[in-house]
Amino acid sequence: MSSLTQPPLITLTTDFGGDSPYVAQTKGQILRTCRHAHLVDLCHRISPQDIAQAAWFIRHCSIAFPRDTCHLVVVDPGVGTDRQIVLARINLQYFVAPDNGLLWPLAEQHQPDWVRSVTQRQYWTDPPSPTFHGRDIMAPVAAYLCNGVPPENFGPKVSTLFRLPDISPRKTQQGLEGRIVFIDAFGNLITNVEALKCGKLPPEKTIVHLPRQGVTCRGLVTTYAQRPPGELIALFGSSHQLEVAVVNGSAAERLGARIGDVVVVGN
Amino acid sequence: MSSLTQPPLITLTTDFGGDSPYVAQTKGQILRTCRHAHLVDLCHRISPQDIAQAAWFIRHCSIAFPRDTCHLVVVDPGVGTDRQIVLARINLQYFVAPDNGLLWPLAEQHQPDWVRSVTQRQYWTDPPSPTFHGRDIMAPVAAYLCNGVPPENFGPKVSTLFRLPDISPRKTQQGLEGRIVFIDAFGNLITNVEALKCGKLPPEKTIVHLPRQGVTCRGLVTTYAQRPPGELIALFGSSHQLEVAVVNGSAAERLGARIGDVVVVGN
Amino acid sequence: MSSLTQPPLITLTTDFGGDSPYVAQTKGQILRTCRHAHLVDLCHRISPQDIAQAAWFIRHCSIAFPRDTCHLVVVDPGVGTDRQIVLARINLQYFVAPDNGLLWPLAEQHQPDWVRSVTQRQYWTDPPSPTFHGRDIMAPVAAYLCNGVPPENFGPKVSTLFRLPDISPRKTQQGLEGRIVFIDAFGNLITNVEALKCGKLPPEKTIVHLPRQGVTCRGLVTTYAQRPPGELIALFGSSHQLEVAVVNGSAAERLGARIGDVVVVGN
Repeated sequence: MSSLTQPPLITLTTDFGGDSPYVAQTKGQILRTCRHAHLVDLCHRISPQDIAQAAWFIRHCSIAFPRDTCHLVVVDPGVGTDRQIVLARINLQYFVAPDNGLLWPLAEQHQPDWVRSVTQRQYWTDPPSPTFHGRDIMAPVAAYLCNGVPPENFGPKVSTLFRLPDISPRKTQQGLEGRIVFIDAFGNLITNVEALKCGKLPPEKTIVHLPRQGVTCRGLVTTYAQRPPGELIALFGSSHQLEVAVVNGSAAERLGARIGDVVVVGN
Repeated sequence: MSSLTQPPLITLTTDFGGDSPYVAQTKGQILRTCRHAHLVDLCHRISPQDIAQAAWFIRHCSIAFPRDTCHLVVVDPGVGTDRQIVLARINLQYFVAPDNGLLWPLAEQHQPDWVRSVTQRQYWTDPPSPTFHGRDIMAPVAAYLCNGVPPENFGPKVSTLFRLPDISPRKTQQGLEGRIVFIDAFGNLITNVEALKCGKLPPEKTIVHLPRQGVTCRGLVTTYAQRPPGELIALFGSSHQLEVAVVNGSAAERLGARIGDVVVVGN
Repeated sequence: MSSLTQPPLITLTTDFGGDSPYVAQTKGQILRTCRHAHLVDLCHRISPQDIAQAAWFIRHCSIAFPRDTCHLVVVDPGVGTDRQIVLARINLQYFVAPDNGLLWPLAEQHQPDWVRSVTQRQYWTDPPSPTFHGRDIMAPVAAYLCNGVPPENFGPKVSTLFRLPDISPRKTQQGLEGRIVFIDAFGNLITNVEALKCGKLPPEKTIVHLPRQGVTCRGLVTTYAQRPPGELIALFGSSHQLEVAVVNGSAAERLGARIGDVVVVGN
């Protein structure tokens, strides 16, 4: 997987919290096995045990990374149950995660080449902590993989991934009903209404309505700068998701919006 | 720019927010093009769209880095307008940023060797998102540069950088009037009064006054440890800027101080 | 210390605050001297000047890292006093820190191979800032060490490290009285009651009592998943410390618990 000039890339996405000792220990564990890995922090502030949020995050971020990147995704409320741990090849990259739905939205978009159940204990720490499989099973598996251990060594193929409940927008009489799935640092409200899935919306005629807030945006813009500062706008953002924003301001603050709030798209 | 033992260094300074998917995507985009780059996070919590804050940050932090480091600085409220994107050589390092003033304070201190407008689309993603030039234009330009693409390939030289309003301290009857520009994690109040620019102040006779708070420090110290815990002190800090601090405590909390508050230095 | 495929590892643990310019400058300073170092952020949000917290953190995190890792630990309220700066070899790793107790708990557990006082100014920046020895003395010392400068060059051996007050649990009539030393992002309450030090506790009969909260857990579990969501449990966690948790919830929130709160373990 690696060469002298191309150290293996391992990214980390967790709900451990920023600056957490759990993140530090996970990094150490990876580097003990794969001393030359290049670690890239993606996110450690997934809301605790929020599988859907982490699944959204890794689907929208992994795509930017190069071939053969190994993504370690640890949001694991089921640690200690019989949930499996999987190693998967999806979109020419590797993913190591508990099989609790974290990889489902990504796998829906990009058919996995294969999924394996991580069962071979010689690649785990001995014994693994019963409460921290991220550090003691998933981290060393990612590291051994980047050292060149063949994927088939980690465990047998499985035929399916754990499926998350469908949270796609649904068609209603008022229009397409989606939800806010992420609020960024600018206060932009990112929704699950995706350009590819909702057909071509006519930019001038599309109406975006937030029922709880009682506000409506008429028309879609292409970029924030098309409207004056302070104006409420709707647009398809940089990951092709519908977002509601305030030009050079915070829509979240202005509207008191929260993750989960309903957004209706009609015309 | 690089050798086997010296991977190219690319630093990131943004207002995207910590743990943001925008940071993750930007990192992925860099690594897709320059697989062996060493990424160094400087700051992702610049206040949203606060160009002056980011300009202050990069001026005071880039100086510590080695020759040929490439600094990506993305605070870009004008994305989608006709503001340019620039690649500049300043103080033996490279900078990629929107030309909105981010590089002005640095360039005032260190005359740029050259500044280029980033116009050659073959080094951008195709097509770039109209709302995320950090990921789709600036990140790949930094990465191609670190791959050895000659700077002249990215676009033509320009003769000047966008200029920020002057926020230097001004002379008044009461003394030199500066402002708090940064409050650190210890609650120290860092001002824009700089040792090199305000002449030699006599340590014993200098008086630092905060009008809004109605407090005064008499005399400058050299280090926090010169005074007992809890005492309010003024000193020139590790970046040669005047700061007001409480020994082993928080001046920000004690005084209710905020960025922008006035500080008057007299004798 | 390093080879082409194994870049030197330098970790950073500080109280500078996340996204702080002090962290950025420290990273730059390291990379100026050791251009090929691999920097790993452990934690920059140690509570300001909280030596005991940082000492706990580095003891529990350094252990996960590979041989020869160099850990830079900077919580330095005594900067500018006559406190020493030390370079130590402990548990086959290197540590650079002010000698104020930061390394004491680790050294209690793993007898240091040697400790040196950092006195040789040719490895410092010239002159070092009187208020920022992390950037100007400790960072370049760590970097020169990783460049292969022999440890003995940095200064003479010293025979002891500064000792922190003992904060081990104490035996009382009610049982072993410990304290909460860390609250993680899940709201789990981590205590200083350690499996190795308190003898074998019978899982079924052990009682964990929080006097300030007036709550009691009867029995120890092995993993969160042994009890239903919402239940208050006690267990030895992934670093072998007794913790109090709520299954899939936050014990900190439920109980209003804080660092320093008393926990009594009896049977």
